[in-house]
Amino acid sequence: MGWLQDETGLERCSANYAPLTPLSHLRRAADLFADRTAIVWKSTRLSYAQYAQRVSRLASALAAMGVRPGDVVATLLPNIPQQAEAHFGVPACGAVLNTINTRLDPDTVAYILDHAGAKVLLCDAALVALAQEAFARMEGPQPTIIEVVDHGFAASGQYQTYEDLLAQGDPQAAWHMPQDEWESIAINYTSGTTGRPKGVVYHHRGAYLATTANALGWRMQLFPVYLTIVPLFHCNAWCHPWMIPMMGGTIVCCRDVTAKAIYDAIADEGVTHFGGAPIVLNSIVNAKPEERRAFDHIVEVFTAGAPPAAATLAAFEPLGFNVTQVYGLTETYGPATECLWQPTWHETTGDTRAALKARTGVAMAMLEGAEVHDEGGRPVPRDNATLGEIAMRGNMVMKGYYKNPEATREAFRGGWFRSGDIAFQHEDGYLKITDRAKDIIISGGENVSSVEVEGILMRHPAVNLCAVVAKPDDKWGEVPCAFVELKDGVEVTEADLISHCRAHLAGFKTPKRIIFTLLPKTSTGKIQKFELRAAAKQI
Amino acid sequence: MGWLQDETGLERCSANYAPLTPLSHLRRAADLFADRTAIVWKSTRLSYAQYAQRVSRLASALAAMGVRPGDVVATLLPNIPQQAEAHFGVPACGAVLNTINTRLDPDTVAYILDHAGAKVLLCDAALVALAQEAFARMEGPQPTIIEVVDHGFAASGQYQTYEDLLAQGDPQAAWHMPQDEWESIAINYTSGTTGRPKGVVYHHRGAYLATTANALGWRMQLFPVYLTIVPLFHCNAWCHPWMIPMMGGTIVCCRDVTAKAIYDAIADEGVTHFGGAPIVLNSIVNAKPEERRAFDHIVEVFTAGAPPAAATLAAFEPLGFNVTQVYGLTETYGPATECLWQPTWHETTGDTRAALKARTGVAMAMLEGAEVHDEGGRPVPRDNATLGEIAMRGNMVMKGYYKNPEATREAFRGGWFRSGDIAFQHEDGYLKITDRAKDIIISGGENVSSVEVEGILMRHPAVNLCAVVAKPDDKWGEVPCAFVELKDGVEVTEADLISHCRAHLAGFKTPKRIIFTLLPKTSTGKIQKFELRAAAKQI
Repeated sequence: MGWLQDETGLERCSANYAPLTPLSHLRRAADLFADRTAIVWKSTRLSYAQYAQRVSRLASALAAMGVRPGDVVATLLPNIPQQAEAHFGVPACGAVLNTINTRLDPDTVAYILDHAGAKVLLCDAALVALAQEAFARMEGPQPTIIEVVDHGFAASGQYQTYEDLLAQGDPQAAWHMPQDEWESIAINYTSGTTGRPKGVVYHHRGAYLATTANALGWRMQLFPVYLTIVPLFHCNAWCHPWMIPMMGGTIVCCRDVTAKAIYDAIADEGVTHFGGAPIVLNSIVNAKPEERRAFDHIVEVFTAGAPPAAATLAAFEPLGFNVTQVYGLTETYGPATECLWQPTWHETTGDTRAALKARTGVAMAMLEGAEVHDEGGRPVPRDNATLGEIAMRGNMVMKGYYKNPEATREAFRGGWFRSGDIAFQHEDGYLKITDRAKDIIISGGENVSSVEVEGILMRHPAVNLCAVVAKPDDKWGEVPCAFVELKDGVEVTEADLISHCRAHLAGFKTPKRIIFTLLPKTSTGKIQKFELRAAAKQI
Repeated sequence: MGWLQDETGLERCSANYAPLTPLSHLRRAADLFADRTAIVWKSTRLSYAQYAQRVSRLASALAAMGVRPGDVVATLLPNIPQQAEAHFGVPACGAVLNTINTRLDPDTVAYILDHAGAKVLLCDAALVALAQEAFARMEGPQPTIIEVVDHGFAASGQYQTYEDLLAQGDPQAAWHMPQDEWESIAINYTSGTTGRPKGVVYHHRGAYLATTANALGWRMQLFPVYLTIVPLFHCNAWCHPWMIPMMGGTIVCCRDVTAKAIYDAIADEGVTHFGGAPIVLNSIVNAKPEERRAFDHIVEVFTAGAPPAAATLAAFEPLGFNVTQVYGLTETYGPATECLWQPTWHETTGDTRAALKARTGVAMAMLEGAEVHDEGGRPVPRDNATLGEIAMRGNMVMKGYYKNPEATREAFRGGWFRSGDIAFQHEDGYLKITDRAKDIIISGGENVSSVEVEGILMRHPAVNLCAVVAKPDDKWGEVPCAFVELKDGVEVTEADLISHCRAHLAGFKTPKRIIFTLLPKTSTGKIQKFELRAAAKQI
């Protein structure tokens, strides 16, 4: 209890206190930006007034189905307007949104539905088969399917459709606002590469503050036009669907991410912002001439998952993009650090600029701290060299793992969230990730950063994408092994690439093997290194 | 207690929760923007590293003087760097900042010091005499004076100086962060025109959220250059000193507000943003040629206190400014509504544009609501006509009035903060203030908006400033009476102005008397209508 409260009874009341929640952003936008376009997808164009009415319909219809505050409503949906509506309609009836990765196998979907105890599943018509396969593997009660039928798809006819459900809802229904901003708004299962996924719980307060952090960090002014490249099931697309109404912006949906779809959205809808993995940048760089469109503004791009390679940046930014690297995890509501561009860096060019852009960054404005810690939990020296674990703390860190207090305690050990990712700190405090914890290669007792080796490989004109992992080695323990995807129509040999690497790297960092292959990727574009590690053992 | 918390023990801890406080902004800036210029005043140029070190010195030195968490530290300071430092250094030792209006009379200063129970007073050398006169009138214990000696002023020699105090502090001292974001950060006494001022208490949470609302509402990107026109003792300059470090910006101080000082700051320091009353806009418009400076960017101006007159806007904006009207009270951390400029308004010109700019606006992003209520507390129809009282609620509303629970309860009656100001709502929801509650004129039973009459007078080319108040009248109860300040070197008669008004206004709204005079103003540029009302009774 703070000063004055005891003395004068200055208490919280509805006049001077409201739990922080992203629902407030849409409520304000529905009034203030009533006629502005909230969301666009093919022939669908919803104004904010319409968007909010559909949210009210969804919330009231879910409540009429028996969904109670605290219940879970899951989704198996691509980036279509209904998935955005669920971000507000589900919490607006007091429920918790569980967006499930649509590319998961049925067994994992079943695990998630069981673990979260979902009451309702909003399911895209094209994913009904997946849902049914998952249901067959569930142990607990099955959720009620509501089928979402997107443009050009046919309903299965087996379930109530989303539009039918909305028709039963009340477009003027009052929303259930949180009583406590610590109440949960979403649960996101991390796409673990081994073991069962963990359910990361977000609360209304954190989601609200993440919206402001993202808007400020992205130097975003009012009325952005935002393209959904990052899946809305991935950390709730970094909380962006909750942010855009605060800014009076427009969400442009993108069901299938292709270079052509991106160019078209920029040229036709005036897209100003999107987020995406470096692989998306690559696909834009490598787009065929007939897929490209002209545009005359600068598009702001947040990229995450891996630092953008210098070669990618050099080819990508001149096309009309400005790239900011961000870093975070499902546990931090998506991005929690940003490579904040300092005014003194404006004049940099070439490799210097690329090296700055490849920095992992600094704490976003609503994160209390992002540091690199040694094993004892102490900050490492800012010496551009000493490796440690990235630790973060503040209001943009998850509530915890659902039904897993041990994992929660372990993740929060020492009063910081421990990311498991390895980095050093530059002298000016900027973090530089060297490896996701499990990606580090230890060769002859020396740490090899797979990211560093990948950066060198990406500089070679023949290389489209690459990934470097540890290969067991009798002499050195581990040696770097590179998997490389070449550009169309080029030819290069293993020896060529090894000699290219050796020209820029110490011998122990140079890959001993180069494997030419198509790289396995997750649905969010992350390269699945665990598969490559398994492959490297067999070589 | 929200969902999951009971079930799984997902509790708050330092990893995932931090009380919201503006102190976090400066702590982050001190690291992230260490070498950037935080504050500029004459030959003083402090980097963020230096600024934060001085804040640490101040906090630790105050603690060493015996200032305890919850104690009050008052200031009598103009807009100089030490006043900005106090905004962080006082809360950084857990104390509550009480910035006192430097133009108050000694009796009122004494009342405030007694009421707040200040332990320390940071006092400008030029204001020591005022402090001494106030001390002589105090009933309770006198605070310890620390004398702040600005460039060009001489210390009285009677008190420890601020620089001596800082020399005793520890530049690395840890800050006292709030344990609860509801703890108080500041107390601001409202400049009541009658009766004793009330102490409006701000908490850390509200101050933090106001910083984000202001940055977003001002369409502010990183690295603004902010000029201190609004006194830092006035609602903590609308929370701007707490906001600027979040944006890595620079505060340019301005001890004496003149058109020349403003032009110089824009031209020499590249000022991008300032706030100020319409009178400041007027002074820029009417600046002498030799006071003007050329600049080639657009300066963003927040104006409040009264709607900018159409004539002022028409002359002001083409000089290189973009004006946004904001509205708020001390009770709402300064601005709480903004005349948010809709994209569909971009093409408007002339009177249409001026009328839009003169709107009071809509709730800022971190305010939950701003509405016009009838006497029963119900929203009035949005019909561009029905008058009612502006009511606001949310996290940007004060904690309450210090030691005045009755006034707090009355202000929060019905779960909204009642502003006392009269407005209607446009069909699109924008509020339009017609009169501060005490300014309305009732003539023959009809309400006359003094603002409307003033707007007409301001259109006359001879009028520099004006104020319209009620004059008692035997027949009509009240009639409008205008006090007018003319531009230099022009001549106009009372009859001229009355006939100008009559050409644009109903008869009952036309002033019956025009008095040519220099208008009395408060230190923040508000015209002191209570003096004019007293004068009108004598005419």
